[in-house]
Amino acid sequence: MASTASLALSQALLPRPSLPATAPNNNHPPSIHLSSFSRIKLSPLSSSSSAHHYRRRLPPPAFRTSVRASAAVETLGATAETALVEKSVNTIRFLAIDAVEKANSGHPGLPMGCAPMGHILYDEVMKYNPKNPYWFNRDRFVLSAGHGCMLQYALLHLAGYDSVREEDLKNFRQWGSRTPGHPENFETPGVEVTTGPLGQGIANAVGLALAEKHLAARFNKPDCEIVDHYTYVILGDGCQMEGIANEACSLAGHWGLGKLIALYDDNHISIDGDTEIAFTESVDTRFEGLGWHVIWVKSGNTGYDDIRAAIKEAKAVKDKPTLIKITTTIGYGSPNKANSYSVHGSALGAKEVDATRKNLGWPYEPFHVPEDVSKHWSRHIPDGAAFEAEWNSKFAEYEKKYKEEAAELKSIIEGALPAGWEKALPTYTPESPADATRNLSQQCLNALAKVLPGLLGGSADLASSNMTLLKMFGDFQKNTPEERNVRFGVREHGMGAICNGIALHSPGLIPYCATFFVFTDYMRAAMRISALSEAGVIYVMTHDSIGLGEDGPTHQPIEHLASFRAMPNILMLRPADGNETAGAYKVAVLNSKRPSILALSRQKLPQLPGTSIDGVAKGGYVISDNSTGNKPDVILIGTGSELEIAAKAGDELRKEGKTVRVVSFVSWELFDDQSDDYKESVLPAAVTARVSIEAGSTFGWEKIVGSKGKAIGIDRFGASAPAGKIYKEFGITVEAVIAAAKELSS
Amino acid sequence: MASTASLALSQALLPRPSLPATAPNNNHPPSIHLSSFSRIKLSPLSSSSSAHHYRRRLPPPAFRTSVRASAAVETLGATAETALVEKSVNTIRFLAIDAVEKANSGHPGLPMGCAPMGHILYDEVMKYNPKNPYWFNRDRFVLSAGHGCMLQYALLHLAGYDSVREEDLKNFRQWGSRTPGHPENFETPGVEVTTGPLGQGIANAVGLALAEKHLAARFNKPDCEIVDHYTYVILGDGCQMEGIANEACSLAGHWGLGKLIALYDDNHISIDGDTEIAFTESVDTRFEGLGWHVIWVKSGNTGYDDIRAAIKEAKAVKDKPTLIKITTTIGYGSPNKANSYSVHGSALGAKEVDATRKNLGWPYEPFHVPEDVSKHWSRHIPDGAAFEAEWNSKFAEYEKKYKEEAAELKSIIEGALPAGWEKALPTYTPESPADATRNLSQQCLNALAKVLPGLLGGSADLASSNMTLLKMFGDFQKNTPEERNVRFGVREHGMGAICNGIALHSPGLIPYCATFFVFTDYMRAAMRISALSEAGVIYVMTHDSIGLGEDGPTHQPIEHLASFRAMPNILMLRPADGNETAGAYKVAVLNSKRPSILALSRQKLPQLPGTSIDGVAKGGYVISDNSTGNKPDVILIGTGSELEIAAKAGDELRKEGKTVRVVSFVSWELFDDQSDDYKESVLPAAVTARVSIEAGSTFGWEKIVGSKGKAIGIDRFGASAPAGKIYKEFGITVEAVIAAAKELSS
Repeated sequence: MASTASLALSQALLPRPSLPATAPNNNHPPSIHLSSFSRIKLSPLSSSSSAHHYRRRLPPPAFRTSVRASAAVETLGATAETALVEKSVNTIRFLAIDAVEKANSGHPGLPMGCAPMGHILYDEVMKYNPKNPYWFNRDRFVLSAGHGCMLQYALLHLAGYDSVREEDLKNFRQWGSRTPGHPENFETPGVEVTTGPLGQGIANAVGLALAEKHLAARFNKPDCEIVDHYTYVILGDGCQMEGIANEACSLAGHWGLGKLIALYDDNHISIDGDTEIAFTESVDTRFEGLGWHVIWVKSGNTGYDDIRAAIKEAKAVKDKPTLIKITTTIGYGSPNKANSYSVHGSALGAKEVDATRKNLGWPYEPFHVPEDVSKHWSRHIPDGAAFEAEWNSKFAEYEKKYKEEAAELKSIIEGALPAGWEKALPTYTPESPADATRNLSQQCLNALAKVLPGLLGGSADLASSNMTLLKMFGDFQKNTPEERNVRFGVREHGMGAICNGIALHSPGLIPYCATFFVFTDYMRAAMRISALSEAGVIYVMTHDSIGLGEDGPTHQPIEHLASFRAMPNILMLRPADGNETAGAYKVAVLNSKRPSILALSRQKLPQLPGTSIDGVAKGGYVISDNSTGNKPDVILIGTGSELEIAAKAGDELRKEGKTVRVVSFVSWELFDDQSDDYKESVLPAAVTARVSIEAGSTFGWEKIVGSKGKAIGIDRFGASAPAGKIYKEFGITVEAVIAAAKELSS
Repeated sequence: MASTASLALSQALLPRPSLPATAPNNNHPPSIHLSSFSRIKLSPLSSSSSAHHYRRRLPPPAFRTSVRASAAVETLGATAETALVEKSVNTIRFLAIDAVEKANSGHPGLPMGCAPMGHILYDEVMKYNPKNPYWFNRDRFVLSAGHGCMLQYALLHLAGYDSVREEDLKNFRQWGSRTPGHPENFETPGVEVTTGPLGQGIANAVGLALAEKHLAARFNKPDCEIVDHYTYVILGDGCQMEGIANEACSLAGHWGLGKLIALYDDNHISIDGDTEIAFTESVDTRFEGLGWHVIWVKSGNTGYDDIRAAIKEAKAVKDKPTLIKITTTIGYGSPNKANSYSVHGSALGAKEVDATRKNLGWPYEPFHVPEDVSKHWSRHIPDGAAFEAEWNSKFAEYEKKYKEEAAELKSIIEGALPAGWEKALPTYTPESPADATRNLSQQCLNALAKVLPGLLGGSADLASSNMTLLKMFGDFQKNTPEERNVRFGVREHGMGAICNGIALHSPGLIPYCATFFVFTDYMRAAMRISALSEAGVIYVMTHDSIGLGEDGPTHQPIEHLASFRAMPNILMLRPADGNETAGAYKVAVLNSKRPSILALSRQKLPQLPGTSIDGVAKGGYVISDNSTGNKPDVILIGTGSELEIAAKAGDELRKEGKTVRVVSFVSWELFDDQSDDYKESVLPAAVTARVSIEAGSTFGWEKIVGSKGKAIGIDRFGASAPAGKIYKEFGITVEAVIAAAKELSS
């Protein structure tokens, strides 16, 4: 390979930005106001609705910097003396060993092997502010091999993050601790994303790097690089085997994400033993094929200078992401368990811990950080504060010169939604032309793109079917990264995880992504991480039923609505027409910590009387009713494309003298959030004659229609035929609703 | 690249096995009896249970060969005259064009571009018997780019398959037709697997090639290669972008599947336009990294000899799979739409169809097959019959010499289960030691491996956690392909799809695969294809709840049980102890056309009184009851690890004088299959005091407990802590069940 030349640089020292010794600190933060935006107005923080207007909370005050703005000068700093580095590295190893031992659960092998690269990243390379983990311009770090989280906890602890104190290390993997079994951004400030399920992290990192490249292209000026950070990731053999990693890394190469630097812990061991049993491909060659710069550090256990040189080389390659393959020994230091699967996922055991202490010459008590190590790391608190202060000062200058851009960037950094943004959403009347909700969705996206500076996204090679192109923007590409239409290719899983990275990069970024609803099966693991990690991704899922017709059962979702209704912290929305589609987008944008899935039709649907944006926010609501006293003869309940059927059946039944309520049940989760009184006003307990209709599995509908009601749906796979024919053959018809309603209400 | 040397061979003609002109045919099939097996007894087809003893139906008689055994001699046959080839290729193109046009739906672009490679495969290269699509030793073909299915339908039609007659072509994508919108093995004999969702097909093909390599290694003898076929696949850019393809192809390279030949339709167009917008990696380099032999045919539209030479070269490389990158023009022949996305997924339109007819000089009516083309292809019926007859004759000789092996192979070919196989399953008493169901599962797997010759499988790098190793066998590897432990690496999605390929290779192959239950999210698309395509894969899914403890919410399934209960044609089984685990395996093995998912515990569980193998077969059954007259005060319902909790709560409540029924609800689908009488005997309508407990989402449980019952479960994400602590904090406890039961039955 042509690209493993870095070893010759092994004596090079990596320059690290450090502060002049005289950098003054004090407690006056630089003033950052929510100053007026010229293009987009921010609403003030007031009134009961203000929380909704702020897409994401500001970082808690405790984390806000208290360092005066000052220019941090990048100088060539000397690396710490090697013995101290070694001692720091062993501190990391033993913090991991001790925490896993105390919990009697966890993965000591990776931290022991990756401690050198971890030390170099957090102590020498990365720019961050331990006292404000949310500082915007920080370098991002992702531990894609999330099982090795004690590596990251040890590093956060040494660096001075308040989220990982000694007691947190001692509570590793315990109830209520901030040091859970895998890194969780929602538990531990300093952790950027939630990893553990393999391959997700590297794909998240691609999203973080995409966000940086995009924002830098939009906001940087020749005289001011206001957005400028790296994204580092450590991934292991497991991540490399996962398809999602290949998808995301193919895109990273395509996009030329030069500030993405992936350190691949090449330790040749996975849970089942030597990787020889299942993983003999040439990762280097594959990554060259993917358009990455590839470096091999053969001496990852002790070759500090080699690692430093590789990172330096990676930074110098600006048009490609870099994979640094770092060959390490899993469980390095353990005399009897190193280089074996036994050290991967279990505590070493008291005896082996002792042996490892002896082997590495570590005389200290568990969890002890030697004073010189502690002192060495202590500079990161003032340094970090100064980094942030320097940036704040830079931003203040930027704001003076580029007022509009500064306001827009600030809204992305802080997650504040511009006042009145929701007024941009289109509304419809029953006279508006019938249309597919996928087309109505495109109208919403294009309307929102004008008022939401952080909205960007795209489709997995189905933009023209999912209708997701933002017409006012071009394609985000290697040489046009300021644009907002992202072309993901046929890579659903990577797409979802990249969007998680984008969402978690900055509170004001609102990524959306799209494919056919059935192909959520390809990206479900990433969607679950959206839900778990509170990444407010908007999933635009079209072709949401047998209504797609001829493509047949491989393309027709059946169980998908139910499967997401069962998933915690995700909103499953199935709008029926234009107003409901707009309402779904309103909900999706406001729910910054709860991802939303919009199930949208391929086929045309009428604009129904009674639907509304406000109705959607309640999840279920009455669109028509000719009864009085909250006692209709029958309640007909529909979602999405079948609300039309319910409405038509209602009209017919009313002609025959029945009192009929028609309810749109666009989101079960939102309905669950309503008061009991409201629920009773829509679905009165006394009315048991209830018929639901939805072109999907009936699974779960008993909850809504009750034991005495009837759920009309599809509990088999679909079929290849024109849509109307399938609806008829499957009994998803007005006639079926009428028949059921008569049976129940007679 | 070093491996694109084939172009120099462009003048070479590919020898195709053809029959001597005198090969006699007649109507006496070779006798293949269900002769006695020395190691494994086959039960006779009789009694009501016999259908269950045959894992898969024999191919319908209509397809059984009626050709006398005769030795087909491989000779160097001349390829058809070029003009005729061209005409045949255009026939394929226009059958596709016309069918898509008539349906006004479909994808003409791929068939038009891939017609040359399709022609060469089906007319010159592949060995098959059109009148018996299930002939065991046929070459397998997979159209991974399934949207181009009209290519395959046209080829099957020309080759003489009864499943695709002219009227079927005319019914393309219509209700009830055998030519659905994507290839479906369960609709169209001659289609091996179900494709359409991209990347699945190439992974299925890896499974088919694995099966061939495995069976060949087990059964071939120096004097008799009784198993000997190739697996061909056509895949497109979309497949190449999907992560699953990379996973499966990495394994194919690792395993050295030399008889897997993938033709990559390199047409540079996907739905969103030129692949330049999202797919600029070097596929060639990536595949070299994956350990494949790579050939590039630059002239895929017209370079027949180049394609032939490439396939010849691919066959000559025996230790690596081959990727033949064939550069084509999508929609070749269409003067205005070729090489554009507009020809990918829509009918050409009458005007462009006319223009294409003119452009390619095609004077015929729609759906017309010119007589000389028809005549040319007509030889495949006698040739195919002779191929099968020759193989049957070979098998008869094999059977004489290698009686045991022949019997075992025959059972794999026919899918017959040996008589009494289920007696191998272990049984347990309440005195048997408590154990995790994952360990009990391993006892079952190892017991079954002794009696089921077609059982093989493995885990996605979690064999030692999923407990899936077959102790009597070694690892299936490149040089030990006769072994049965498959090491999939951390590639869940590829694993599932590979198992689909194995299952659909031969009725008697029973693949199982394993990972943590939560990671079904990674492989859900493949699992859905198992269900849809009736591939009886056994999914061994351990660590099935918060009971896994410290790994935390990324690893703890919550909504997964519900999500699979909502999926059609898949069995979701959650056994509670040893007997139920054995019962789950019995169900899984018998259900050859319905895949099974076994959710298994990480934690130890007691062997409960009242559980049984037979009970599991009914899905839900009473394990204890102190009531009379089918009127208990309360019914407690549990699944899996929570059945113990229900049983304990029952004991407590009985001490307090209640009459309590405890029901194990191991599989909702199997319970649904029971008679109304049986259901009433377990869950009498009159008893509304019902409490269910399951460490998962309560979604859907209203169906079982009714509006007046209570479902105890977990409707949030999990947590990282010791398992017992999480159970307590989440209220999954005996106390909670007792409290609910008292409230409902007071």
